[in-house]
Amino acid sequence: MTDKRRRRLPRSVREQEIIDAALHVFSKRGYHAAVVDEIAELAGISKPMVYLYLGSKEGLFVACVRRESERLVAAFREAAQAGDSPERRLWAGLSAFFAFVAEHRGSWVVLHRQSPGQGEAIAEELAAARRSVMAEVTGLVRDGITEGGGAVQLGDQDADFVAHALVGAADSLTDWMELHPEQAPGGVTLRLMNMVWVGMRNVLAGEVWAPPHDE
Amino acid sequence: MTDKRRRRLPRSVREQEIIDAALHVFSKRGYHAAVVDEIAELAGISKPMVYLYLGSKEGLFVACVRRESERLVAAFREAAQAGDSPERRLWAGLSAFFAFVAEHRGSWVVLHRQSPGQGEAIAEELAAARRSVMAEVTGLVRDGITEGGGAVQLGDQDADFVAHALVGAADSLTDWMELHPEQAPGGVTLRLMNMVWVGMRNVLAGEVWAPPHDE
Repeated sequence: MTDKRRRRLPRSVREQEIIDAALHVFSKRGYHAAVVDEIAELAGISKPMVYLYLGSKEGLFVACVRRESERLVAAFREAAQAGDSPERRLWAGLSAFFAFVAEHRGSWVVLHRQSPGQGEAIAEELAAARRSVMAEVTGLVRDGITEGGGAVQLGDQDADFVAHALVGAADSLTDWMELHPEQAPGGVTLRLMNMVWVGMRNVLAGEVWAPPHDE
Repeated sequence: MTDKRRRRLPRSVREQEIIDAALHVFSKRGYHAAVVDEIAELAGISKPMVYLYLGSKEGLFVACVRRESERLVAAFREAAQAGDSPERRLWAGLSAFFAFVAEHRGSWVVLHRQSPGQGEAIAEELAAARRSVMAEVTGLVRDGITEGGGAVQLGDQDADFVAHALVGAADSLTDWMELHPEQAPGGVTLRLMNMVWVGMRNVLAGEVWAPPHDE
């Protein structure tokens, strides 16, 4: 037994160390190939202790998804809150999102790459993570609508629509980032703002695109 | 043995009937809960014959994904080709996509709801389906860029970026459609065009959004 194993740590600290190790192993090996022995070894703790803390391999994965999605949402929220207009908040929030994905590759692998072979508990945790991100973006869009003034007839359904489109686009663009590793997260944000902001501003201002007439 | 079972059909026709049955059962029960007995029963054929034709439960699912993604891509392509401008092509392509999702719920469940517990072959087929859709949209955007004229310095990487954003947004918006079943596919298309077309037109015209300056 190494010195590391003998350390006595508060439960909460030990648990975070186990999740750190699990995240490393899951993102490197994938859910199927990952083995709890390696996670225990990396955390400097016995395998029975890992099970005692987090229940099962599935429990370990669920804990990773929960913690990393909370971190992602917190990073998005903190950045967005600092903005003093809908435009700045959206820009700051998206910047934080793409920066998080670039900096925390392991976290994003666990959140984004739903490895085949996972059970119901993991699927449910991933769905909850997505709902949580969606709620954050919906709130941001709703604030944008409210600030847009009374002339605009947009409601919660509209905010939720815009949030679904934005979250789906950002999610899919992380695949594009992987294909183009030379592209900085800031550049990705700029491109996406270019694509959606002008349209969103118009939507928030109550303008409506209509299909072109036959000429 | 029923009369239906005794019918002698060409292999290709029989195979399509089996895939019809498989699609029905998979979309209704999910991958895990689906059993080949029910698929065989519905197709009016013996279980060993089903295996002879499509190999395994996994093979049945792969066949469903392949056929339905080809149908989806064909519907998108046909609609988009009829348009005589980038704007009309995008509008027509997105309209066809959302109409397909609304009309062929079973197909979309199989393509979109990646049930947990699926193996590598299915994951690979789903990834191939997504690449196929992405290639179609990228081609459409690239044509838009080309028609935009020589002043625009946009390349394949830009087309691929826009395609990733659009496909991700459309994919995610099918969840919104499910939450709002009263919304017609045409209305969903209009909303998405509102959100992205103005921005895309500007991007294609070479305009660039920049972060707002501090005031």
